[in-house]
Amino acid sequence: MYIGIDVGGTNLKAGLVDETGKIVKAERIPLNFQGPEQFAKTLAELSRKVYQDGVQWVGVGLPGAVDGGNVLFITNIAMENVPLEQMFRRHLDLPLLLGNDADCAAVGEFFGGAGRGTHDFAVITLGTGVGAGIIVDGKLRGGMSSSEAGHIVIRRDGEPCNCGRKGCWERYASATGLIQQTKRAMERHPESLLHQVSAVGGVEGRTAFQAAEAGDETAIAVCRQYVDYLASGMVNLINVLRPEIVAIGGGVSAAPEHLLLEPLREAVAKEAFSRHGGRVTRILPAELGNDAGIIGAAMLGRVM
Amino acid sequence: MYIGIDVGGTNLKAGLVDETGKIVKAERIPLNFQGPEQFAKTLAELSRKVYQDGVQWVGVGLPGAVDGGNVLFITNIAMENVPLEQMFRRHLDLPLLLGNDADCAAVGEFFGGAGRGTHDFAVITLGTGVGAGIIVDGKLRGGMSSSEAGHIVIRRDGEPCNCGRKGCWERYASATGLIQQTKRAMERHPESLLHQVSAVGGVEGRTAFQAAEAGDETAIAVCRQYVDYLASGMVNLINVLRPEIVAIGGGVSAAPEHLLLEPLREAVAKEAFSRHGGRVTRILPAELGNDAGIIGAAMLGRVM
Repeated sequence: MYIGIDVGGTNLKAGLVDETGKIVKAERIPLNFQGPEQFAKTLAELSRKVYQDGVQWVGVGLPGAVDGGNVLFITNIAMENVPLEQMFRRHLDLPLLLGNDADCAAVGEFFGGAGRGTHDFAVITLGTGVGAGIIVDGKLRGGMSSSEAGHIVIRRDGEPCNCGRKGCWERYASATGLIQQTKRAMERHPESLLHQVSAVGGVEGRTAFQAAEAGDETAIAVCRQYVDYLASGMVNLINVLRPEIVAIGGGVSAAPEHLLLEPLREAVAKEAFSRHGGRVTRILPAELGNDAGIIGAAMLGRVM
Repeated sequence: MYIGIDVGGTNLKAGLVDETGKIVKAERIPLNFQGPEQFAKTLAELSRKVYQDGVQWVGVGLPGAVDGGNVLFITNIAMENVPLEQMFRRHLDLPLLLGNDADCAAVGEFFGGAGRGTHDFAVITLGTGVGAGIIVDGKLRGGMSSSEAGHIVIRRDGEPCNCGRKGCWERYASATGLIQQTKRAMERHPESLLHQVSAVGGVEGRTAFQAAEAGDETAIAVCRQYVDYLASGMVNLINVLRPEIVAIGGGVSAAPEHLLLEPLREAVAKEAFSRHGGRVTRILPAELGNDAGIIGAAMLGRVM
């Protein structure tokens, strides 16, 4: 048995996970961050709530960069170069394994979702950014070698990215990118249904897909362009690594299949090198939703 | 002991290679291709010339795509879907291991050159195209999962590539791309020294570097632009895989360090995600030159 903890922006979610990757017990508490020492203590307390005899380690998925038992930095939580495992062990004497959230999503799907039965697998998470988790020959590219495939440039001298490059895939294929593309289309097209669809909740990642479903031409064009951006980086990744399956997760992946996955598959099939020989990569939706983070964190020790 | 055979456009070069990756005996014959059956027989005959007791397998590096003991296709040699190992074994009863030439270059450098002592390593070969050989956790991404990193798009809607995409890295960062860039600069700059430098042998990959060494402004600009293209794809590859070392091989890699490797390292350091944390990838020249193919083919069985 393993414990997995998914650290989000507002909550910590913990699960007791069995050898097959199933969550058998779960707990959730607010993050309420008050410094690294208190955070380590909270992780230990939360672990105790789901603990049972035979637990081998606690895995933690974080939105940031890690190296062994150390946190290099976390996005939106004030931790930098923190020896988290060392702090944690003062409260609970179990190994603490750390992974970034995109990597944990990949590990979760690898054991319990879209990547079951593969050796070479990737998950691309379409959220605030574009996260990538990559498993090669059954081992996670984690820690210091964790993939940053969201920072492949797909448009030379394109949109500036926080990473310092211009034109990163993440600027175009994330929910953030899609929202920006939707807003720009709305400025050019005051007649578009996008204005009605977004009137109440504002423009979201799903806005363009909702208006496209209703037949709005502007929205259909936004979705097409978005899929084209998504495919561009996807083919780059596939040509480099030739995985068996790439799964698509994150909020945007909930879009209707005929507007997202189907045209994405067509675009990738048209461009990927595999049509000249070599492995054909399948593109599937991620299956585990929010549970992927807990399961992946718990299973970290199985792919290291 | 292993036998490695490097299949080039005009010659077959074979070597008897020891456990440390050293060539202890070598032979070379013209390719003289007369069909797959005769080719398999030639490979067996050439193997016998360097054979000694204790040889475990024959590895063959080919400019094409392979799957197990089968050749899917070879560039410039008329073979498609050929069960080469099966044909070979009628003449010599040893396992025949196949690899593409970029992969063999990576394996050679991994054991005996720039990649010694690493676990995660890549070789980028700058020749007619941009070849990529990738080793992850000590295992080659070979056969059906062999990398085609030369077909990362670095310029959206850029130069058409044979692969069907537009703007592939290979169109810009290969010797072929550099020659094209040099010729275009010469058209725009009749005063450039490039015309004198290329007067005898025509424009080659090294032409721009030679004229730049002599202080020609146009040539210096060509070299800078070329390094920029090279860095663009290199950072993409590094952000995806975060290897310990990337070695640069192929004809272009012989360019003066201050015109190629030094500015390349600067550009990569400026753009790679590693400056936010994670592993910093080193960029080195490949060390083995033409021997990499023989050594890499011989060592294929050690990285599968």
